Amino acid sequence: MVLVNGVFTDSIKANDRGLMYGDGVFRTLRIENCIPLNWALHYQKLASDCAALELACPPISVLERELETASESMRNCIAKITVTRGAGARGYLPEAGLEPTRIVSTSPLPEHQFQKIRAHLCNFRLSHQPRLAGIKHLNRLENVMARMEWKDPETREGILLDLEGNVIEGTMSSLLLYHDGCVIAPDLSRCGVDGVQRARVLACCEKNGIPAKIESFGIDRLIEADEVFLVNSVFGLWQIVELGSVTWPNGEFCGAMRGWLQ
Amino acid sequence: MVLVNGVFTDSIKANDRGLMYGDGVFRTLRIENCIPLNWALHYQKLASDCAALELACPPISVLERELETASESMRNCIAKITVTRGAGARGYLPEAGLEPTRIVSTSPLPEHQFQKIRAHLCNFRLSHQPRLAGIKHLNRLENVMARMEWKDPETREGILLDLEGNVIEGTMSSLLLYHDGCVIAPDLSRCGVDGVQRARVLACCEKNGIPAKIESFGIDRLIEADEVFLVNSVFGLWQIVELGSVTWPNGEFCGAMRGWLQ
Repeated sequence: MVLVNGVFTDSIKANDRGLMYGDGVFRTLRIENCIPLNWALHYQKLASDCAALELACPPISVLERELETASESMRNCIAKITVTRGAGARGYLPEAGLEPTRIVSTSPLPEHQFQKIRAHLCNFRLSHQPRLAGIKHLNRLENVMARMEWKDPETREGILLDLEGNVIEGTMSSLLLYHDGCVIAPDLSRCGVDGVQRARVLACCEKNGIPAKIESFGIDRLIEADEVFLVNSVFGLWQIVELGSVTWPNGEFCGAMRGWLQ
Repeated sequence: MVLVNGVFTDSIKANDRGLMYGDGVFRTLRIENCIPLNWALHYQKLASDCAALELACPPISVLERELETASESMRNCIAKITVTRGAGARGYLPEAGLEPTRIVSTSPLPEHQFQKIRAHLCNFRLSHQPRLAGIKHLNRLENVMARMEWKDPETREGILLDLEGNVIEGTMSSLLLYHDGCVIAPDLSRCGVDGVQRARVLACCEKNGIPAKIESFGIDRLIEADEVFLVNSVFGLWQIVELGSVTWPNGEFCGAMRGWLQ
């Protein structure tokens, strides 16, 4: 089910700037029992990402109505909201008065649920772009190239380092460590997506008295961590238990965090 | 006029990976008297960019036919060819058997022709991504952000530096210097688009006995150059004669190069 600017259709204009330049942002979220989970946080992030690109964010009431319409036939599903700068003439400078394009689509929940997964260490490295870091924009070729590195369906996610070797994230998820009673989240000031679930993990730490810090770290630090985990709005929390020959057998903290997030 | 996979339409699938992730490449070229200029070079570059993304490039005969159809009503026009990985389900990993999407569109030639222009020095800096450098892919948010920095219509182009301060290119063109009888082209191994017209400039240098080299340089080197110029397949060659308080009054070499390129 796809709504483009409020109308059921499966197509968008061929000259949409989202296609021509990746000039837009998106969100993926879960709808359970007809309720979009963590909707306030998702809308806040969408609005802040739009602002970073100087793009007009659709009003919250419009998106709420469209989420409801697009998910009408499914109580539980995944929703995706894309906002682009709109359809326009060729050229990087947006014409004055462009109307942003809203795409709201829904798809079934993933069939399988996992808690512990095997990960792949990607060879593809993320570039540093401080002006776009943190934003969930439509320029995702780095993620595509990284994701194409492995085909084994039993390997669920890939870990992305930046060009300097800092651990940043998963190809479709945020990555965090738990070590010596403390949660460590990668510094995302130069690359990576600053996601809603990552923010929720940090908020859960604060609420439950777990010290948490944001800092840069490399693969050595990851390997010596007690637990390593990934979060996103589709699958919740996955614990990484295997990466090449490295294993992380403990999972107590991940179990607790999964409970707090739910 | 827009052809998508050979059919006249102004729309593409809302789940095209070109829109979702910028997962594709493009070319812009000039058609004069019904002939696509430098077509062999453009196709070669399209094929090489597709290969870099592990994307199947449409056969040359198909694109030639579609260029002809899309430009049927205009002897002279600008053509744009976009190739994406195709429409597919959500997720960075392309599904097996995806059919690439071809978009061939035409638009009128720009009304005004310039030879000497004023440029803006962009604050936005390009990131380093060696794995994608040189490719004209659809992840062009950096160009959009840089182009939004100035609104003055008399300033025709912006000069982009990378995060280390190396001069790389214009927002929509390749940049080269002429100094002490020699042409210098920026090193594009970490960022920038390695365009067809830049390659043609270097080939013209070889043919006409002008020494040319590719190397990294900063803004100081640009300022002390005898002439600075931009090339692309739409406007040909623009000489930069003004950048802030800096001017480059000489234009003999640019005049000669413009002649060689034609």
